[in-house]
Amino acid sequence: MAAESVAHRLTAQHRPTLDKALEVIRTRAYWSPHPEHPKAYGENGSLDAAAGKAAFDALRGTRLDLGQPGTDDWVGGEVSPYGIELGVTYPHPDIDVLLPAMRAGQRAWREAGPEVRAVVCLEILKRISDRTHEFAHAVMHTSGQAFMMALQAGGPHAQDRGLEAVAYAYAEQTRTPDRAEWTKPQGKRDPLVLTKTFTAVPRGVALVIGCNTFPTWNGYPGLFASLATGNAVLVKPHPRAVLPLALTVAIAREVLAEAGFAADLVALAAERPGEGLAKTLATRPEIRIIDYTGSTSFGDWLETHAHQAQVYTEKAGVNTVLVHSTDDYKGMLANLAFSLSLYSGQMCTTPQNLLIPREGITTDAGAKTYDEVATDLAKAVEGLLGDDARANALLGALVNPDVKARLEAASGLGEVALASREVAHPEFPEAVVRTPVLVKLDGAKPDAEAAYLSECFGPVSFAVAVDSTDDALALLRRTIREKGAMTVGAYTTSPEVEEAVEEVCLEECAQLSLNLTGGVYVNQTAAFSDFHGSGGNPAANAALCDAAFVAGRFRTVEVRRP
Amino acid sequence: MAAESVAHRLTAQHRPTLDKALEVIRTRAYWSPHPEHPKAYGENGSLDAAAGKAAFDALRGTRLDLGQPGTDDWVGGEVSPYGIELGVTYPHPDIDVLLPAMRAGQRAWREAGPEVRAVVCLEILKRISDRTHEFAHAVMHTSGQAFMMALQAGGPHAQDRGLEAVAYAYAEQTRTPDRAEWTKPQGKRDPLVLTKTFTAVPRGVALVIGCNTFPTWNGYPGLFASLATGNAVLVKPHPRAVLPLALTVAIAREVLAEAGFAADLVALAAERPGEGLAKTLATRPEIRIIDYTGSTSFGDWLETHAHQAQVYTEKAGVNTVLVHSTDDYKGMLANLAFSLSLYSGQMCTTPQNLLIPREGITTDAGAKTYDEVATDLAKAVEGLLGDDARANALLGALVNPDVKARLEAASGLGEVALASREVAHPEFPEAVVRTPVLVKLDGAKPDAEAAYLSECFGPVSFAVAVDSTDDALALLRRTIREKGAMTVGAYTTSPEVEEAVEEVCLEECAQLSLNLTGGVYVNQTAAFSDFHGSGGNPAANAALCDAAFVAGRFRTVEVRRP
Repeated sequence: MAAESVAHRLTAQHRPTLDKALEVIRTRAYWSPHPEHPKAYGENGSLDAAAGKAAFDALRGTRLDLGQPGTDDWVGGEVSPYGIELGVTYPHPDIDVLLPAMRAGQRAWREAGPEVRAVVCLEILKRISDRTHEFAHAVMHTSGQAFMMALQAGGPHAQDRGLEAVAYAYAEQTRTPDRAEWTKPQGKRDPLVLTKTFTAVPRGVALVIGCNTFPTWNGYPGLFASLATGNAVLVKPHPRAVLPLALTVAIAREVLAEAGFAADLVALAAERPGEGLAKTLATRPEIRIIDYTGSTSFGDWLETHAHQAQVYTEKAGVNTVLVHSTDDYKGMLANLAFSLSLYSGQMCTTPQNLLIPREGITTDAGAKTYDEVATDLAKAVEGLLGDDARANALLGALVNPDVKARLEAASGLGEVALASREVAHPEFPEAVVRTPVLVKLDGAKPDAEAAYLSECFGPVSFAVAVDSTDDALALLRRTIREKGAMTVGAYTTSPEVEEAVEEVCLEECAQLSLNLTGGVYVNQTAAFSDFHGSGGNPAANAALCDAAFVAGRFRTVEVRRP
Repeated sequence: MAAESVAHRLTAQHRPTLDKALEVIRTRAYWSPHPEHPKAYGENGSLDAAAGKAAFDALRGTRLDLGQPGTDDWVGGEVSPYGIELGVTYPHPDIDVLLPAMRAGQRAWREAGPEVRAVVCLEILKRISDRTHEFAHAVMHTSGQAFMMALQAGGPHAQDRGLEAVAYAYAEQTRTPDRAEWTKPQGKRDPLVLTKTFTAVPRGVALVIGCNTFPTWNGYPGLFASLATGNAVLVKPHPRAVLPLALTVAIAREVLAEAGFAADLVALAAERPGEGLAKTLATRPEIRIIDYTGSTSFGDWLETHAHQAQVYTEKAGVNTVLVHSTDDYKGMLANLAFSLSLYSGQMCTTPQNLLIPREGITTDAGAKTYDEVATDLAKAVEGLLGDDARANALLGALVNPDVKARLEAASGLGEVALASREVAHPEFPEAVVRTPVLVKLDGAKPDAEAAYLSECFGPVSFAVAVDSTDDALALLRRTIREKGAMTVGAYTTSPEVEEAVEEVCLEECAQLSLNLTGGVYVNQTAAFSDFHGSGGNPAANAALCDAAFVAGRFRTVEVRRP
């Protein structure tokens, strides 16, 4: 089929989805075109559970040849947190060859316009969605997420975030019309008349620097926002989580080529161990946009040194839950227990510090002392994770040895309210599965500060005793301001305290969840409705997804003619 | 009147104007609520010519006490390019007192919401508009612009750009609803239900660093974009052009106070000679947004060092007009002559390099050699400026001695096609008024490159001889890429050349005007319709005005409740 008719077909097929996405980013209502249930896959060309597993297994031990120009080596070496060797090798780029090749396709991609770019992006997402089960294994065996989470967060939720970015990109590029007639009256003389055309033009080549824990979920927003705004996109995955993004790049290249565009508009930059390729790429003049998820130190380095690029970062923060009072003590404990356990606390949104008044809290089950709250929460976690099968399904595996080391060190920081235990994984005996640790710290003691005011990424939380609600609010404010926060939670039945917590979050710019006691957790956000991060505190300089996330990825060139 | 009813009255009064502005930034049609004709003022509370002049005269020799906290000195010393001493003194800030005072008003300003903030901004603009004649003198006697230009560019055109920024800010803040109900189906179980609120929150204190030549026109977009998005705004004017922005600050403080908000949300930071206050302010942690117009060196410094802030810069560029062919030779010459003369070439948008083929061009008046084009353009400028009264009305005065020095040095750079002449100013004999110089340079000679590839700000243009159209296109591309450009012009009757120039501008990201022969000039842009700069080449990192210019000035904080 000719390229033009492919574009036409894709528009007919995907325009309704785009329109719905454009509607929900305005209403913020619930919506997703990507099913969460594993059994929803298997029809209309999508892989079911068995086929997805088989596809993943077939990838192991192979060379993933993406057909990229300037490939000077084959690199790999990913080892699953579940212990299996993936054995996949990927192209290593000669960037002096690859970058010019990527730019070669940009004119046609720019000329295609915002709508065609959007529907091509939606076709890429559709084919990724069809292979959700295959991606689930790829995400599981790189991030250490349990299978169900890898399927949902690495599949439909990531695809939703990609689609959301495409919708924002389309909306932003089409706010200015393609063409305008401008007529300025001149009194009795003839008016001044100009015809003006406006074209969205890309910045250049965009770089996506992937992370270990959520390669697709954190990678897709930047990838699709940049591609939909006309940029070529170079994906530099985390060396421990290459496969999910390599598959993504392969699908993108396939769709682009089928639609008549240059496959090289999207390419992979896998690296040799210790090569530090991200640093080299980040300051290349061709790289005009960078999306990064990872450590604060490298995020800060990018913000300081990559002056030639628009830099969007998600770094580390210290997430706080302020516990003041509740009318559903059991629900609160259950909700917190789940939040602390999910993916072994290896989410950038997992609560770390639980601020609990020293004199205790009021609840529907009577007054509870600080010690009782800590003990009851420990029991709730133990109850939730008492069964090994359930624990494995919730916790997943520790993603790397650093997390394990931090977990082991944490119990020396204070009195342990809940000790971590090892959970055996029947299918993957090498997986390191650990339940979370809860450590009691005195918020008034200066020596405890070093612990609770640092991010301790992994299954480590602190029950921090505070002298008063005012102290809790002050500590919350200071934590957000100095350390950043992806999420803040609070439990209170007092309208005054609720307002005070809200005011701190508004002033310090953090996303707040209040009194969550049911099936929504502080560490989970839904695309199209929830913002992930605020972009206004040190944890991240961007939010997923808003207009600021896309508006700088393109520029508008105007041509005026009489 | 109580604050709430003031807000109500302002909404009733200004909402239709806001709605119209919101409409035209989408259609890009011609519109302005601010009259250009000097005689349009004098009714409905606006000052007519005589009253405006009297108001300006009354300001001379006075202390402009803005009632700002933390004033530790009074500074001044502006001298008009027309030779008169202004003698106005302004508050010098103790920033450790002023900055906290500015932040104190932010909560109420945030809580007012986007619509009230917008209509308060529109009331500020309305009162500025009423005093357009007074501002005209203030702009004239700081920038050196001739009166009519000071009135139009410093008055209605600047007010338009301010209003445009308010409209973009309002549109961006209201894309997300204040509140949403989110219901996620859970199969047979009860759905998950959340109520979500979304609040636009400011970054902090915004800093506007004003310029000498267009204090209001270049200052208003950033000032109003930041204020409308909830930030406090500190205005640091150029030491030679304080008065127009000081009056602006005074009006803003008056309107804010009347509407029940803290006057200190807008403040002035005038400086002592050589103090370098901009540098001190730019890296203060309280300053989260910076708008800057001025030299490339300080703009680059801000982009590199003010990491804590969103930095929007308009720096220097080298503007090019490619002359290939025309079907209106006379019109082309007249149009270019006007563009080179207006405000003595002291616009960031004035063409500097005219690329003319060595073998000449085709025109409706027959073939013209390179020498003939240069000579005919020189004659056109001489004809335009032959009459001293008209020359004074078009040229204005040289803004500072540096411009005069560059002008004098320029005639040593090559063969002078048009010599600059002194024009006597009958009213202001001390004004330095000079007609532009046009110097012939050989584009193929490496020693000429240093001249035509540097910005020579002022009434200096180069007729650069090029070997071919391809050479001209290559030089245009190189100039934009390496030096930046606020504007590009081209004259051609060839569709192929037109397409090639357009492609260079799309790829290098520069705003292009084609075949202007009438009353629209390459150096003028109209708010609501034309983008000023592209933000995509080295001349500026932002465009006036688009969503990217406002979207990063606020963040959205979400609060979720079951």
